[in-house]
Parts: sequence; structure tokens; C-alpha cells
Amino acid sequence: MKDYNLICTKCYKKFPVDSIYYRCDICGEPLELEEIKQGKINKGNILNQTILERYLDFYPFLDIDSNISLGEGFTGLVKSGKLADVLGIKKIYFKNESQNPTWSFKDRGTVSGVQHAIKLGYKRIGTVSTGNMATSIAAYGAKANLETFVFVRENIPYEKLKPIAIYNPNLIKVDGDYEELYFESLKIGKENNIYFINSDAPIRIEGYKTASFEVCEQLNFDIPDYVMVPISAGGNIRGIEKGFREFKNSGLISKTPKIIGVQALGCSPVYNAFKNQSERVLRFKDPNTVAHAIGNPTPPSGNQVIRMIKANGGNIVAVSDEEIIAAQAMMATTGIFGQLASVTSLAAVKKLKDVGYLKSDDKIVCIVTASGLKHTAALETHDLKVGKSNINELSRLICDKY
Amino acid sequence: MKDYNLICTKCYKKFPVDSIYYRCDICGEPLELEEIKQGKINKGNILNQTILERYLDFYPFLDIDSNISLGEGFTGLVKSGKLADVLGIKKIYFKNESQNPTWSFKDRGTVSGVQHAIKLGYKRIGTVSTGNMATSIAAYGAKANLETFVFVRENIPYEKLKPIAIYNPNLIKVDGDYEELYFESLKIGKENNIYFINSDAPIRIEGYKTASFEVCEQLNFDIPDYVMVPISAGGNIRGIEKGFREFKNSGLISKTPKIIGVQALGCSPVYNAFKNQSERVLRFKDPNTVAHAIGNPTPPSGNQVIRMIKANGGNIVAVSDEEIIAAQAMMATTGIFGQLASVTSLAAVKKLKDVGYLKSDDKIVCIVTASGLKHTAALETHDLKVGKSNINELSRLICDKY
Repeated sequence: MKDYNLICTKCYKKFPVDSIYYRCDICGEPLELEEIKQGKINKGNILNQTILERYLDFYPFLDIDSNISLGEGFTGLVKSGKLADVLGIKKIYFKNESQNPTWSFKDRGTVSGVQHAIKLGYKRIGTVSTGNMATSIAAYGAKANLETFVFVRENIPYEKLKPIAIYNPNLIKVDGDYEELYFESLKIGKENNIYFINSDAPIRIEGYKTASFEVCEQLNFDIPDYVMVPISAGGNIRGIEKGFREFKNSGLISKTPKIIGVQALGCSPVYNAFKNQSERVLRFKDPNTVAHAIGNPTPPSGNQVIRMIKANGGNIVAVSDEEIIAAQAMMATTGIFGQLASVTSLAAVKKLKDVGYLKSDDKIVCIVTASGLKHTAALETHDLKVGKSNINELSRLICDKY
Repeated sequence: MKDYNLICTKCYKKFPVDSIYYRCDICGEPLELEEIKQGKINKGNILNQTILERYLDFYPFLDIDSNISLGEGFTGLVKSGKLADVLGIKKIYFKNESQNPTWSFKDRGTVSGVQHAIKLGYKRIGTVSTGNMATSIAAYGAKANLETFVFVRENIPYEKLKPIAIYNPNLIKVDGDYEELYFESLKIGKENNIYFINSDAPIRIEGYKTASFEVCEQLNFDIPDYVMVPISAGGNIRGIEKGFREFKNSGLISKTPKIIGVQALGCSPVYNAFKNQSERVLRFKDPNTVAHAIGNPTPPSGNQVIRMIKANGGNIVAVSDEEIIAAQAMMATTGIFGQLASVTSLAAVKKLKDVGYLKSDDKIVCIVTASGLKHTAALETHDLKVGKSNINELSRLICDKY
């Protein structure tokens, strides 16, 4: 491991990176790997590289074990002239994270965390998640031959359980408070030598930076004005912001985009704190949103997201279930079917354009965090059109009707 | 368009590429774009290229409209030391086509077909499909702003219909013989200026070549001994074989791999014909397999697959539902969750190793055609293990049991 530190995001206390530290023992706030200031891109053929290899300068690892990779990252950045017209903005792009090996952005963080676990000699990893992260950890644990523990909510629907269980981790439904389980898992991990790569584990967050690095390359380093990122625990948005910051530090881009965090109104603790100019994110009572994957009432990185967004000059918005459902349909008109949590990024663009916050000459990137296939029951919310014909009448139908 | 021809795969009659031809008017057999003999790779940064741009020399297009792209291709090639050990072979790789924009290999063929449609001035495209191809055409039609027609079986399950309908094509359930519908669609297309980019449309097949091109690059041009490809209509395996052939023509690789086609025993018309040394594939009666996506009783490219495999020196095998289900679980132990149709490639490796056809020093690539999320009901076939605990007892459980 390189000689880097983890630093408390609030009081700046330092912790060594060659061990597991999640949070500051003084102020309880999340840690962050110190800023990389002079990184370079390893410009090889991406077909022969992993994301950690291409951006190795931005990691504490001296070298990369490519055998732990499942081919994560290097996802598409899709420009939509159609939606730019519809929204009345200059340029809009979708970073399609559903093209990851387990069809969500989580794989970037997981591969980074698993690399860290292996460097530290761990044989066991784990996570607390009921959705995308559970699947991701189960898959990468299987690939890296690590004993893998996944703690899920007791009331997880069977349809979400199966795509985790197929990778055969030690999968345990846990009855109890979910927020408490996050902290309980860290304790259990310490006692049993299990590295819990939870939602905002510092080295997991480092993995999310690669999405920003790729966006910079994909836009030929002509960076966007705004990047829209759904907020759940707060890990992904922290990583994405840090990626742009480190590319700027390193002279690879000349400015950083404004980061817009997006929550669902039905579970918007970070938005509420930001709106109330509070430094502390409070538990959101009775969460209720169609965007389950970001329905986190107690985001562990919430306070740091507030601090980060203030420093960045960005914003945090919340969108209603109706706006989210409309955004899923709208995004599909340009060929991308995102999970409901994912399409909040587009819902926020529409909302912020309508109120005049976004301008017609803005260039915007929406992070599409996961595949719409993750939860197809959500499609019930749409009025889907299906015609019907007999084969003998089909020719006439097409001729007459279309 | 470049001055290329489509050539009948059986009688070699030529047809111009700047119009739509599907099959030979003499022998009724599928057409194929003439072999490219001196292609080069456009070696740019893949983050700024589409697959059609990188491999443009191998296409009839003079230039590429990158706006039709959804970021298809450049999928991972995952090496599994674990499964190599389990199977007793030297090297095994998985080409994970679930990382495409609609989570199947179909997107490669669709983008190629849509590019062709646009070059020919079509404003309308269509397909006949109840699965992955329907989704893919609906998505790319949306992206390219083309009016899109999708004809599906009358008895399509609702869960399969929704992920097609979300892209808002003209989606029509058709009551009647499905084989007949393939040909009826071509007639309807001609009458109504709709380009039906069906399963083995010649320029669709050209898209599938790119998976082979990528595999060559990913293996540093040290090509595998065998490539395992599921067969349904026969389009994908034809494209994959042609890709290796054209890279060899062009001096980019020194030999071609043997291609192994795989069918499900419960619907194995091509396998049956090959086994019986027949040149004609007959309709498979009463198809019944868990691998729905390759359950095609009348593969339109069946006869050509037989001819192609004979010329290539490969083979065709069939695997049972039990073997397919076991292969899905086995592939997940290395972190990849494939659709049941996809994992037939791995089931075939196991079967052919067990009978001594594959040797311990063979290097093998399995094409994983689509995501396991496409049909999660299939997970019911597995005995998935789930533990249970109260949060207060969790620490003791982990300590005692693991």
C-alpha cells in the first residue's frame, strides 16, 4: 500500500489506510482517503485494463490483482439530443451504470473494497444491504473466493432475495433496526475478521470516483456544468464529487462541475437538512417512496454530503413519486430503462429547469445508477400500450393504423 | 455505402447491400455480407468510440452516426481460475454480454441494423421477438427516433411484455404461427416501408462480429481453442464465427477457434440435424425447455449454421434442463449471473470435458448472451439458502456458526 492516510471529513484527524477504519473516533463522521494531487491516467487499451489499473495513481494500492475484476466500469455515456430538445437545454448525457457486471454502480465501489480487503489479508467480506450492494458484494466475493456475508432486512421481498442468493453468499435475514445493523455489522466484523464493505466504507467510495474519471475522458475533458446524482447512503455522490476534484488537482480538467444531489420526497433526510441550513441530517420518519433503492431514512454519510455540496457549490433537490415515474418513462424514450431510484437524476433536471435554476445553455450529466430490470414490478405504475391482432389481419392493421 | 455485396450462403448468388435483402430468391437460404479481407482496427480510446467506429473497416458503412449508439459492446471478458480448476481445463473465459445497454448481445446486431436502416433512409424499423431482441429494437428505435414495430407472441407472459413496452414502441401481440410471422413481417415491411431487423437479418448478424473482435483484443490476439455459443435463430453464432474469420483474413490472428453451438435438449432442431448428418434443419416438435430464450423450433438460419460449423470444424451439442440449471449455479460461483439460455455455453463445456472432447490444456471462451435478471422466475429452480437471525443474536450466530 502507498503511504496515504484516511482523513476525517469533519475534524481532519488522520487514520492509516492499511487497516480498516470507517468513521472518526472523535466526531463519529465518515473518513475519506486523502486527496490525490498529481495523478495520471494509464493510457492503455481499455479492453486490456480494469478501471483500477487505468486509474491506479488515484488509489492507495501499489498494484492491482486483475483476477478480482468482473469487468466493471467503462460504461456508456449516452448523449440525447431528443431529451435536450424536450427539456430545453443544450446538452444532456446519461452515464449508464446499469452496464456494470451486476447492473448497478455498486460494482465500482465493491471492486475497490475487495482489492483493499485482499491487500490487508482478509479472507472474509460482508455488507448490509437489501438491494444493489448486496448483489454486488455477493458476486465479487464469489469471484475473489472470499467467504461472503450479506445481512438483509427481515422483510425483504422474495423477488429481491433471489438475485442475491444465486451467488451463494452467507445470506442472513436480520430482524431489528436497520440503522443499528450498519453499526452492529462493523462490530461483528471486528470480532470475526470480516471486512464489511458497507455503503460508505472509505475505500468503497474511492471506487465511485472512476465514473467521474470516465465522464471526463468521454467528454474529452470538456466537463459538464452539472452532474446529477441520486443520494441514498451518500457514498456514490461523495465518490463522484471527489473524482472531479482529483482530476482538477492533477491538472487533467480546468474546473469541476457543480454536483446536484437528488432524493425522493418520500424519503429526503439530506434534502431536508440542506434546505433548513442544518449541519446535521436527522432520521426521516415514515419513509415512503417508489424509489426503494434510495429510501434510506438515516444516510450514514448524510452530514458529509451536506458539507461537500456546500464546498462544491452544488445543490440538493427532492422529487416526488409522480415526477420519478414520469422520468422513468421519459428516459426510456431515449432508449435507457433505469431503476426508479436512478431516474431521479432526470426528474431533477426537469424540475430545476422548470424553476429556472438550470439554464438553456447548460451541459448536464445524469448518473443512471442501476438497471430497470432490478425491480420490474415498478412498471405497474406505467400505462403501457399493447396492441393485438391475428396474423391474417396484421397486414391490414399496420397499413390502416400506422 | 461501400461497394459490397450480400451473398447467398448456399448458392453464392449476389445481392446489393444498399437495399434490404434477407434471403436468396433462388434457394431461400440466408444471405451474408461478403467476407472482409483487409480490415484494420481503428485504435482510439474506446471511451470515445462506438463498436462500429472501432471496427468500421469490417462494415459496409462509409461513416457512422454515433448518435444512434447506446454504448453497446466493449463488454467484459472474465477469466475464472476457479471454474478452470473445477472443470479441469487450462483456461476458461466468460464474455459477459449482459453488460450491453439492454442487457443482452442483441444490442450489437441492433445498432448495426439501425445504422443500415438510417443509411437506406428508413424512418421505421421493426422486429419479431418475444424476448431480448424485442427489448433491444424498442430501445434503439427510441434512441434513433424511428417509428418502431414489435410483434410478439400472443401468449407472451406479462412480465416479459413490460420491459419492452417501457420504451413505447408500437407493440402488437399477434395470434398465429410464430414461424409464419417471421415471413409475414418481411412482407408487411415491404408494403409499409418498415425495415424488419429480424433475428438473422444479414446486417444484424454483422453486428455480432464485434464480440469476436473484442475477444481477440482482450486476449492480445492469442485466440482460444474453442468458443461456445448458444443457438436460437442462429444469428449470433454466425456473426461470431464470421468475426474470427475476418480477423484471420486480415492477418490480425493466425488461426480461428473452433465454434461450438449449444442448444437445449428440449428444443434442439439444429443439434438433431447435425447429429443425423442432415443438411436440413426440421421443425422441432413440442419444444419444452427452461431456456426459453433459445427455444426456437424453426431456426431461420439453421441450415447455414450446419454448413458453417462443418466448414469451421466445430461441433453442436445439446444440454438438458438439469445441466442448464446446474450451469447457472456454477457460473454464479464465479460472480456471473446469466440468463438460462446464456449458461448453456458453460453446461456444454462441462459435458464436452466429461466425454473427453475438450482436453485439459484447452483455452475456452463462453459467450454469456444475457443477464439473469431477464427472467428471475427461473431462480425458483434453485435451492437458495437463506439464514435468519434477530439483531441481538447475530453476533453469536456468526461467531458460532461460521
